[in-house]
Amino acid sequence: MITGHVFIATSLDGFIARPDGDIGWLLARDDHAEDHGYSDFIADKGAIVMGRGCFEKVLTMGEWAYDRPVLVLSRQLAGKPVPEALQGKVRFSGRTPKDTMTQLEAEGVNRVYVDGGQLVQSFLRDGLIADLVVTTAPVLIGAGRPLFGALPQDVSLALVSSRHFPSGLVQSTYRVLR
Amino acid sequence: MITGHVFIATSLDGFIARPDGDIGWLLARDDHAEDHGYSDFIADKGAIVMGRGCFEKVLTMGEWAYDRPVLVLSRQLAGKPVPEALQGKVRFSGRTPKDTMTQLEAEGVNRVYVDGGQLVQSFLRDGLIADLVVTTAPVLIGAGRPLFGALPQDVSLALVSSRHFPSGLVQSTYRVLR
Repeated sequence: MITGHVFIATSLDGFIARPDGDIGWLLARDDHAEDHGYSDFIADKGAIVMGRGCFEKVLTMGEWAYDRPVLVLSRQLAGKPVPEALQGKVRFSGRTPKDTMTQLEAEGVNRVYVDGGQLVQSFLRDGLIADLVVTTAPVLIGAGRPLFGALPQDVSLALVSSRHFPSGLVQSTYRVLR
Repeated sequence: MITGHVFIATSLDGFIARPDGDIGWLLARDDHAEDHGYSDFIADKGAIVMGRGCFEKVLTMGEWAYDRPVLVLSRQLAGKPVPEALQGKVRFSGRTPKDTMTQLEAEGVNRVYVDGGQLVQSFLRDGLIADLVVTTAPVLIGAGRPLFGALPQDVSLALVSSRHFPSGLVQSTYRVLR
């Protein structure tokens, strides 16, 4: 069965970006000499889904960083043409999380990287996330775009592992319990 | 100089209690066979300050658990009599966080345990917290009383240590950077 997987960074107070989308506070605390495990994480993922906010943020960061097919879930973008430079790499879709997973499964994908706060929240609500790697930066930013949101019921997790880095990042991996 | 210190537990989505104050989700994930370090933490603290919400929660939990003088900061309780069973153990005060620290310092206290979400937020905003021990329970509860809140500016932290327990709790200690 197809499963969703999260790999995301947050401030200690639970924000993935400032209200205006800025992540300078995170980049300033990143240490590129450290291996935070993204390569290992992405190695077995067949596709990436993200929301419009996340997609537009990635566009501003210069070079396209993804070597997996990306599906941008956005009612606003669905039906619009994909920018030429990204054709063959990116698709826009207006489907629900559940229908998206059914579609990707039909295309032969087993494991999906779910990126961006809003989309992580939707996929969690719909029970489509199998595990989460949450990397916490040592800073309180006070306001911003929250990683987590409202839920129809508690989501119980099992801690799989936790490690920390000289930069001060703490990275914990959780499996969602059913 | 007198300093404030935090030792608190939170859900992975940043809540210290449900909207109605319930912490059953936390107690269910606690393992009393594990030493989460509270005794070590409290050993060098001369006083405890908490807000009314936290005080009223503690009252419902049966036996009075604190062997340090407790100051309850609450405009609502200030001036009211302390329940007889707690006289000599608890005082009510309407002072601000800063004035409270000045008062406690004058009484010879050096290190203060600051407990409860609202009070942690106030003391952080006023720059009165030196370090925080944050213990994260492996669950998303979706809504509740947040550990952190709005800030006049970023609070940069240095990770002092991080460890995890078989129960799935992750405990990280941060020093506030000035």
